Amino acid sequence: MERESYPPFNTGKSFDILSQFAERANKLKQSEIRNLFSVANRPDIISLAGGMPNLENLDFKKIDSLISEIILSEGNTALQYGGGQGLPLLREQITEIMALEGIKSHSEDIILTTGSQQALDLTARLFINPGDVILVESPSYVGALGTFMQYQPEIIHLPTDEDGIIPELLEESLIANIKAGKKTKFLYLVPNFQNPSSATLTLARRVAIIELAKKYSFFILEDNPYGLLYFETPPPPALRSLNEEHVIYLGTFSKTFAPGLRVGWALVPHSLREKFIIATENSNLSLSNLNQMVISAYLSETPYQEQIRKFAIKYAEKSALAISALKKYSPSEVKYTTPKGGFYLWLTLPPSIDANKLLPLAIINKVAYVPGTAFYANKNGNHNLRLSFCYPKPEQITRGVQILGELLSAEVALKNKN
Amino acid sequence: MERESYPPFNTGKSFDILSQFAERANKLKQSEIRNLFSVANRPDIISLAGGMPNLENLDFKKIDSLISEIILSEGNTALQYGGGQGLPLLREQITEIMALEGIKSHSEDIILTTGSQQALDLTARLFINPGDVILVESPSYVGALGTFMQYQPEIIHLPTDEDGIIPELLEESLIANIKAGKKTKFLYLVPNFQNPSSATLTLARRVAIIELAKKYSFFILEDNPYGLLYFETPPPPALRSLNEEHVIYLGTFSKTFAPGLRVGWALVPHSLREKFIIATENSNLSLSNLNQMVISAYLSETPYQEQIRKFAIKYAEKSALAISALKKYSPSEVKYTTPKGGFYLWLTLPPSIDANKLLPLAIINKVAYVPGTAFYANKNGNHNLRLSFCYPKPEQITRGVQILGELLSAEVALKNKN
Repeated sequence: MERESYPPFNTGKSFDILSQFAERANKLKQSEIRNLFSVANRPDIISLAGGMPNLENLDFKKIDSLISEIILSEGNTALQYGGGQGLPLLREQITEIMALEGIKSHSEDIILTTGSQQALDLTARLFINPGDVILVESPSYVGALGTFMQYQPEIIHLPTDEDGIIPELLEESLIANIKAGKKTKFLYLVPNFQNPSSATLTLARRVAIIELAKKYSFFILEDNPYGLLYFETPPPPALRSLNEEHVIYLGTFSKTFAPGLRVGWALVPHSLREKFIIATENSNLSLSNLNQMVISAYLSETPYQEQIRKFAIKYAEKSALAISALKKYSPSEVKYTTPKGGFYLWLTLPPSIDANKLLPLAIINKVAYVPGTAFYANKNGNHNLRLSFCYPKPEQITRGVQILGELLSAEVALKNKN
Repeated sequence: MERESYPPFNTGKSFDILSQFAERANKLKQSEIRNLFSVANRPDIISLAGGMPNLENLDFKKIDSLISEIILSEGNTALQYGGGQGLPLLREQITEIMALEGIKSHSEDIILTTGSQQALDLTARLFINPGDVILVESPSYVGALGTFMQYQPEIIHLPTDEDGIIPELLEESLIANIKAGKKTKFLYLVPNFQNPSSATLTLARRVAIIELAKKYSFFILEDNPYGLLYFETPPPPALRSLNEEHVIYLGTFSKTFAPGLRVGWALVPHSLREKFIIATENSNLSLSNLNQMVISAYLSETPYQEQIRKFAIKYAEKSALAISALKKYSPSEVKYTTPKGGFYLWLTLPPSIDANKLLPLAIINKVAYVPGTAFYANKNGNHNLRLSFCYPKPEQITRGVQILGELLSAEVALKNKN
């Protein structure tokens, strides 16, 4: 039978649906991440911008055979709705992965999420009242800042050095917030090979920060995508391995296996488990069973730890190339971090050079990076930029850093002349 | 090298992380959906509870070959991060699917989401200030109510009959809200084969509701998972086909293909596109490229419209079985709807029988349903229940409805005796 037809319709007076926005919608800012993807996708640009892992070394034939087995023998489960918390077997396997970083955990306290991004969103949603203080590193991960801001906190960037957050200055901030009548909800940290600075928090500082969490009754949101991707020396044990009560720990398969499956997790204090499950169901009902089953099979049936070491060695080589090109081509006025793991280099330019203003010129010269302002909720970061060495090919890294180094040299020379 | 070791750690004074919750966390209620999954998974129970599609008729070999092709020839893309809005090709294909229900759209205004559940969450997040009024049907979809409640609106259930929302009573509510100084943000509707009532909104009412949206400046959140799953006659055209400005339209592949891929979409007024993309990136960065590519290939390379008709015919047969068993076994005091599409039957029990109180007895007798209270944000629905005929086998439907009918007959007899 035919669908019932309808008369011509006059849409009448105009309606501005934007006028209906909630207050929090005004806190959503244009994502710098998305801009990066569109630039990174242009084939003529050497992108040192996006934090995409390099998947070239994955065994696609093996992955294909794992998926075939799942679809043909368990297709009815793989393509059906799953439970909100995630597959029990995969959660068990994740306890073993976390044990590699010293964490003792129970699979009942793990909630699987759409990458760790969803876990950031769930944590922010559950804990941030408008006006609450959230403490973050200087600089901090752009994706976390955007997600937090939706819920209208006050974001305070804490001073850091090459060893991460400085506990004494953290305590000063905590005291100042108490005096100002502000509630500090949590401290957000990427303690290992931080995005974007590549800093790793020392063990002594981890211990000191947990003592402060206990003294001042806040919790730590420990986001650890890169911990297993160390170049030579493993980072200190996870904060979660030192304390269970004050830490929500986030992990992901996006950097150690494949981001396209969109599977990460939160390990939460047991008392939070129920609320996290409800919140994740409200967000998406359940994760993709298929994707969870692919990861579970990958963990069971391939030497994934060896694969992670192979990835890390590749990244170490790429990092060394980038450092070597910076040494050769960037002016002495430009400072940069020396990564010991992860994906990123953080550059500090002289005060006369603004990384945002330089970006169009860089793109004209066929190289892209992320300006430092993306990693601050305030107006800082103008004289910083992030370089990612994870995705580009080795020759692109050398060439891209050379172009950027020469641009920076020219800018420095120009400023000195004026 | 070995990971640095750490001293024994005293966790010191106790910390109640629950004390850190934001106000909205207190609005998260235990999900009835999750309880259903755990009951439905017990093999000895005939579950008429969950709204899971029946996947038996899918061609798993074909799906496997589509996935193999993707992994082996485009694995680097499929397993990599994607863009926040979703794959352009799939968005184009979705415009064609929506055209089947009379909708003219541009792929630029489509945002792909983790099922339509994520689109519900994004809409609620962008639009609900605490205290705003959200209008919903009586009863309304449980998953939407839970998601809305996180953002602290006042949810008002509007009277409905077998043809859905009654425009005159909608207008009364709008006027009453204005008089009470309340802001009505949006009206949430499942216009076709509603979950849980199976009601379908008539064309005349669709037109009248859009006129009211224009007159009173609110928008309609049109959630349409079941529109293509009509048994004989297509439902009236989508509200979105009648008006672009006042409608956010949600679709999903969960009922017409496979929920395990977790892909749905929102078609939004053009002015909202940017904010929706930012909000979805804040939620999960991007959807799974692999899952999007699987759906895109399925749409390109299989006769999916024929497959949807085959699904619908199976569901029609199952609905007829359930109705026939209700006629035979349920007491005359119990009323029920007659579905013309979708997955659900809605029962109205006599006032003496409480569907929540009956449920443990039903489960002891090996049959499960969803009590009506799940579909109300207020205390209503005690004398209703939802039966799903989508997932169980035909003989289970007949047997399950028989058990339930006999239980209800016994309850009615008992109450009459007292």
